[in-house]
Amino acid sequence: MKAEITTKINGVDTERLTDTISAVKASPELGRFSFQIANRWINGGENRSQVKLFRGQGEVFSHKTNFELLADEPDVLLGGDTGANPVEHLLHALASCVTTSMVYHAAARGIAIERVESSLEGNIDLQGFLGLDPTVRNGYQLIQLKLRVKGNVTDEQLQELSSLGPTFSPVFDSIRHGVPITVSAERLP
Amino acid sequence: MKAEITTKINGVDTERLTDTISAVKASPELGRFSFQIANRWINGGENRSQVKLFRGQGEVFSHKTNFELLADEPDVLLGGDTGANPVEHLLHALASCVTTSMVYHAAARGIAIERVESSLEGNIDLQGFLGLDPTVRNGYQLIQLKLRVKGNVTDEQLQELSSLGPTFSPVFDSIRHGVPITVSAERLP
Repeated sequence: MKAEITTKINGVDTERLTDTISAVKASPELGRFSFQIANRWINGGENRSQVKLFRGQGEVFSHKTNFELLADEPDVLLGGDTGANPVEHLLHALASCVTTSMVYHAAARGIAIERVESSLEGNIDLQGFLGLDPTVRNGYQLIQLKLRVKGNVTDEQLQELSSLGPTFSPVFDSIRHGVPITVSAERLP
Repeated sequence: MKAEITTKINGVDTERLTDTISAVKASPELGRFSFQIANRWINGGENRSQVKLFRGQGEVFSHKTNFELLADEPDVLLGGDTGANPVEHLLHALASCVTTSMVYHAAARGIAIERVESSLEGNIDLQGFLGLDPTVRNGYQLIQLKLRVKGNVTDEQLQELSSLGPTFSPVFDSIRHGVPITVSAERLP
């Protein structure tokens, strides 16, 4: 019988986290990951993405189960309202990444967190999407992220904690600073 | 008894689409929408977002049902693997928005589409997230989007179709060009 001893802070195994940091420090190529999805249009504003595999550390990994992510538009935007819409999913990606980044980096610093909540709101002017005014952008004009944290921390630590997500989050950086996107198209037989 | 006649192309009610375009053209303030989510940390890499309300055209709208979006990290990234991770959700937001934007704008042009599929892949170097190399960004370094379309269209129309998503998609613009994000933090009681 083998005893398994793990040290978890915020639900994160800090021993494995330290090991991961050391491994990537020693062999930077182990930090290279690529994530992928496959999306299929259903009808109107409805479509679905499959999430199965990702690559990292020179290996192909499979999620424990396959995830299907839905998207649709609400009625006022001419959809069937069977799922959150793409710009709401973008806010979820941002919220979840900022939270996870804060929780992991707090664990690495030995700071225990009790609760994290966040509210996000983003403004869009449909004149952009509808092609009515070339001076109006299609995307979000501003996103406001409000974090609420509970933990046995000083006000100074609370400020430090709340900066961890924005400082380290991959999605925060992607949305804040933009990402090059290549697009190719081919005909389905 | 009232007969309801709708003209749908690609599942999009083109009469309502034309009405929407005319309405926003006449009163640009009707194009102003804001979307929102509320996220709650569960444990480790797991957290959930609630999607309920959004605002537009001076009104508050409620989705037909409330949507709960999950996020977690796979085991190799020290999570419980109960859901797609934040950077995979970002790819879903992008795929779903590019597809919907193409489908809607094709409908506005009277172009019927039979099928749309897309594959997306994005590269991340964890040296950024782990804070190991300040010259490595935290976010995606590149996203590759491959569209596949089926429809009774010429090669020229196929090229035009495949440019509609990137040209008009709010999420494409947000991720490609970046969005200002304000962050505030407060203590939970």
